[in-house]
Amino acid sequence: MSVGTEWLVDAEGCSSEALRNIATVRAVCEEVVACLGLSVVGQPLWHQFPPPGGVTGLYLLTESHLACHTYPERGTATFNLYCCRPRPAFAWDERLRESLGATRVSVRLVDRGSAAESEHATFESMFSESATAQEVTSL
Amino acid sequence: MSVGTEWLVDAEGCSSEALRNIATVRAVCEEVVACLGLSVVGQPLWHQFPPPGGVTGLYLLTESHLACHTYPERGTATFNLYCCRPRPAFAWDERLRESLGATRVSVRLVDRGSAAESEHATFESMFSESATAQEVTSL
Repeated sequence: MSVGTEWLVDAEGCSSEALRNIATVRAVCEEVVACLGLSVVGQPLWHQFPPPGGVTGLYLLTESHLACHTYPERGTATFNLYCCRPRPAFAWDERLRESLGATRVSVRLVDRGSAAESEHATFESMFSESATAQEVTSL
Repeated sequence: MSVGTEWLVDAEGCSSEALRNIATVRAVCEEVVACLGLSVVGQPLWHQFPPPGGVTGLYLLTESHLACHTYPERGTATFNLYCCRPRPAFAWDERLRESLGATRVSVRLVDRGSAAESEHATFESMFSESATAQEVTSL
């Protein structure tokens, strides 16, 4: 039985400067929260690691959670958005290009809680969803 | 370019009582952290929602993050363990059966940061990994 949907978003070719700027990365997460009408519980956790200066952000949501990690040395940022209630889609591709300078954005959807009942069906459905991911990925 | 590996773990058929006991769920997460030698940054975020009383836990790790959500009304718990450094495998199936009374445990591995470069290859590799997931899933 499904208990939620998770978006796995990987953005590559990003500006290293943007990825080590905690305010910039935080603004992206705050925009996701605002655009999708998510409810943050308590204070989000933010941490900047020593050089090359990647940052991590974690939001505990009424809807589940939002997590972000950046890797300035690789020009990559990853996001997890896990929602146990239906939410509209966020314009990940467009917004991560604008805010972080991403040149490639991959969006994968994963159904949570139902994999054990029908593993094969779940992976088949992920295959069909990968076509959608490819559509939003510009090489 | 891969920046890490994420384990998506879904446990079903769990004890509702265990899933709403924040101490029990927290003990599972602390065991994962201890067994894999993970390093927690700051204090983890824990929250219990109103009845049916699901709990959420988020750990910011040097290695990335660990997240847990429980759904007592559905007997389901989900875990995300995202590691940007190689880690040994945790005995999710055995431990979640013992600690939460799970009757089905699904473990899926997802490569992060490389999907946009080779979406098809990533999904093919997930398919082969799904065989492993099926092996640990007891129906």
